Amino acid sequence: MADARFFDRAGPFSLETLARVAGADIAGAEPQVAEFTDVLPLQMAGPGDVSFIDNRRYVNAFRKTNAGLIIVAPDLASKAPPEAALLVTGDPYRGYAKVSQLFYPNAPAAGHSLERATVSPSAQIGERVVLREGAVIGDDCIIGDGCVIGEHTVIARGVRLGDSCQIGPNCTLMCCTIGAGVILHPGVRIGQDGFGFAPGAPEHEKVPQLGAVIVEDNVELGANTAVDRGAGPNTIIGAGTKIDNLCQIGHNVELGRGCLLAAQVGISGSTKVGNYVMIGGQAGIAGHLEIGDGAKIAAKSGVTKDIPAGMTVAGYPAIKSTEHWRNLAAVNRLRSKDRGSDDG
Amino acid sequence: MADARFFDRAGPFSLETLARVAGADIAGAEPQVAEFTDVLPLQMAGPGDVSFIDNRRYVNAFRKTNAGLIIVAPDLASKAPPEAALLVTGDPYRGYAKVSQLFYPNAPAAGHSLERATVSPSAQIGERVVLREGAVIGDDCIIGDGCVIGEHTVIARGVRLGDSCQIGPNCTLMCCTIGAGVILHPGVRIGQDGFGFAPGAPEHEKVPQLGAVIVEDNVELGANTAVDRGAGPNTIIGAGTKIDNLCQIGHNVELGRGCLLAAQVGISGSTKVGNYVMIGGQAGIAGHLEIGDGAKIAAKSGVTKDIPAGMTVAGYPAIKSTEHWRNLAAVNRLRSKDRGSDDG
Amino acid sequence: MADARFFDRAGPFSLETLARVAGADIAGAEPQVAEFTDVLPLQMAGPGDVSFIDNRRYVNAFRKTNAGLIIVAPDLASKAPPEAALLVTGDPYRGYAKVSQLFYPNAPAAGHSLERATVSPSAQIGERVVLREGAVIGDDCIIGDGCVIGEHTVIARGVRLGDSCQIGPNCTLMCCTIGAGVILHPGVRIGQDGFGFAPGAPEHEKVPQLGAVIVEDNVELGANTAVDRGAGPNTIIGAGTKIDNLCQIGHNVELGRGCLLAAQVGISGSTKVGNYVMIGGQAGIAGHLEIGDGAKIAAKSGVTKDIPAGMTVAGYPAIKSTEHWRNLAAVNRLRSKDRGSDDG
Repeated sequence: MADARFFDRAGPFSLETLARVAGADIAGAEPQVAEFTDVLPLQMAGPGDVSFIDNRRYVNAFRKTNAGLIIVAPDLASKAPPEAALLVTGDPYRGYAKVSQLFYPNAPAAGHSLERATVSPSAQIGERVVLREGAVIGDDCIIGDGCVIGEHTVIARGVRLGDSCQIGPNCTLMCCTIGAGVILHPGVRIGQDGFGFAPGAPEHEKVPQLGAVIVEDNVELGANTAVDRGAGPNTIIGAGTKIDNLCQIGHNVELGRGCLLAAQVGISGSTKVGNYVMIGGQAGIAGHLEIGDGAKIAAKSGVTKDIPAGMTVAGYPAIKSTEHWRNLAAVNRLRSKDRGSDDG
Repeated sequence: MADARFFDRAGPFSLETLARVAGADIAGAEPQVAEFTDVLPLQMAGPGDVSFIDNRRYVNAFRKTNAGLIIVAPDLASKAPPEAALLVTGDPYRGYAKVSQLFYPNAPAAGHSLERATVSPSAQIGERVVLREGAVIGDDCIIGDGCVIGEHTVIARGVRLGDSCQIGPNCTLMCCTIGAGVILHPGVRIGQDGFGFAPGAPEHEKVPQLGAVIVEDNVELGANTAVDRGAGPNTIIGAGTKIDNLCQIGHNVELGRGCLLAAQVGISGSTKVGNYVMIGGQAGIAGHLEIGDGAKIAAKSGVTKDIPAGMTVAGYPAIKSTEHWRNLAAVNRLRSKDRGSDDG
Repeated sequence: MADARFFDRAGPFSLETLARVAGADIAGAEPQVAEFTDVLPLQMAGPGDVSFIDNRRYVNAFRKTNAGLIIVAPDLASKAPPEAALLVTGDPYRGYAKVSQLFYPNAPAAGHSLERATVSPSAQIGERVVLREGAVIGDDCIIGDGCVIGEHTVIARGVRLGDSCQIGPNCTLMCCTIGAGVILHPGVRIGQDGFGFAPGAPEHEKVPQLGAVIVEDNVELGANTAVDRGAGPNTIIGAGTKIDNLCQIGHNVELGRGCLLAAQVGISGSTKVGNYVMIGGQAGIAGHLEIGDGAKIAAKSGVTKDIPAGMTVAGYPAIKSTEHWRNLAAVNRLRSKDRGSDDG
């Protein structure tokens, strides 16, 4: 059970409501309760709880669970304990996400809200907006309905936010336009200068960065992630793209729709990334490249060339992942062969 | 001498007091002063100062130093200058740490403290707590005795801190329980959502993150480091573990006691790390792995498999470090052999 | 055209003024306007705009542009459209930087400035200083003329800033001396404890960090970058060095003049880096090394040994880049040879 110190739970909910929300079919035993009260892992759930299985690794826990209702894929449904009600769907993890959102509709509140935010008289603040302690809203900003702006977050001149954004504490937003439903975790930096210099001695000359950042609808950016504004063109984060903590997005980068970037990824200036690209943790992409739709980049890769749509790459410089793993195998064999002389 | 603009010095202290604090035996010449006044490097110290040697590389400086008192291991004591008093101990660096803490007991104050913190009426604040300008303490928080909460740090609803924590400026703490004696450097982010989505098109579905973060006693987290809260289980940082700047700790990660993580390390979700594990800078560990007690992971490694207790690994994918270095040697030899044809 | 929501434009300016600022010679056609009003990319510029070309890749856009005035190198001037006026210089990107600075002299304002900063009575604040909402200036600080201190930035006891510094929002400055003309982007952390412990079980002993950070004139530090203070000596960032976002500079590191560090670079403690060293993104340098003047370190490299002046290195462990690329070629050939048996 989620700790009530931190989380507010809604419900209870009926089997029918949960089936509709999960987009699932009802199967298995009759429920033992009229309404379900919480979501819990298989090992901890009881007759009033909803649980799920998404990975065959956990099939033993599934067989033994006391959960009253379990979200499950068709091919595993036959292994359910006989007294459990089932919600059968081809995507049980997504079904669980939806049901879990129903029970826990609100993000944990970040601190105690008082009325000590600072708002420019020229800013337009929507309805049901929450401005927490120390939030600063600059001249001519437009804040959409239902936004929450965290403590000590600074929203600079001219920035616009769509409806229902959740902006964490201690963030900085400059020179940007933010869509609806965007989530920024604490310490996100958007819209500062890109790294632009005319290099030389004795001094590198700073090049003014005159573009902006466009963050489209339903984007999520992790804690302490930085997105620089464009040098002239804009930096763009496409709709539904999710970026983890401590990532770096350089100036003029364009990310398409639905990309997933794990933590500590870095993308250098002017690179264009297609839709639904997946990038593993600590990977880096050089500047001025094009990454095709649906490409997959393994963790810690260093991408130095364009990647065609749909290709999976790994290594540094990143190459087709099958070739990369064969390279590693070849080196391991080489070392084994050399061992005699090494040890001699 | 530490700059008096930044540091407050205590003392002076007698030879006997310093020996007791350092856990060392008195040896060498009679001291030239009744009490010692400061700690300084060998090259800069004078007769009233305490210095130390921990590395044979500095034995020349040791022979020539004017330091009045030197903390030294038994095997180097015979190389001391004849007029120096000595504190002989098997762990001179730790002895120096203790003595240096005695002279400089207070962390530098981060800014000018005024009474403009914001505290929920339902929060419980211990004795001798310092809340600096702009600190925000949420509903039902419990702050232990002697804690210092830095400027513009946000402590959200329900968070509890043990005694004597030092929380830097501009930090964010949500959904977490913090032990005693914990040090958080500026910009630390604890307890935000982990990176949890049911992936798919057109939209990745956000999975509510319903766990917390447990930070045990005497943990230290570096500037701008991020620790996500658990998805359902908790994220745990074991007692005495020290984490450097700009690290990423994913949801459900468990770190044991006494681990040392250098800067920019990333640990992916649900990985369990044992006790006294050492991880070099910019290393990454994939998700759902187990790292045994006392393992050592070289800088920049990428760990993709479980690591047994006590093993030292390197490379990406990380393998036994001796094999990794032999791989590199084999490749270097291969290149040398190929050179003729390359240049042709 | 830079978005007027975010940027204030100066001008218009005459051809002669622009030539002088750019350090360029006037050539090409007579201008079609008395004064020029803006800077724009070749594809978007009209007769009243200034543009530039610095890369042969864009020569087609150059031939077709409607820009009224173009900054160009001598070897490309002959390819200009016949109706364009030209500013001819050997360094057109630097010329563009200067001209663009003239049109956009002010950094975008980060938020709405009110008088709710907190200033210690013992601090000395220069003339024309802007202290934004929530800025905190500690005891005995000295803030030079013309500095701008961003929202919720904390400047701790004893810190000194030279003239004309631009300090972004949500920064933390402790135990440091900052030169003139320094730019810190949001979330920069300067002067916190370095990662110093006498390691051991059951407890690692914290070693007090008694040095400071010296940031020389015209340094620029990117968003969420961290610079630890020295352990005894100082950490030093040399004049004119530019560091991108999310970098880590360990205790006692010395960076020379005019270095360029791309994003997510990490430099371990006590390493000394010469002048005009260039370091690619996500590279790491181990501790206690010396990197010679003008060395170049490729992105993602891991440097484990001293590097002579002027050498270009790559890989991990980083070696001469020509050898590194030959290693990769040798491995690729080895894999191709092995393929038959792999697939069998």
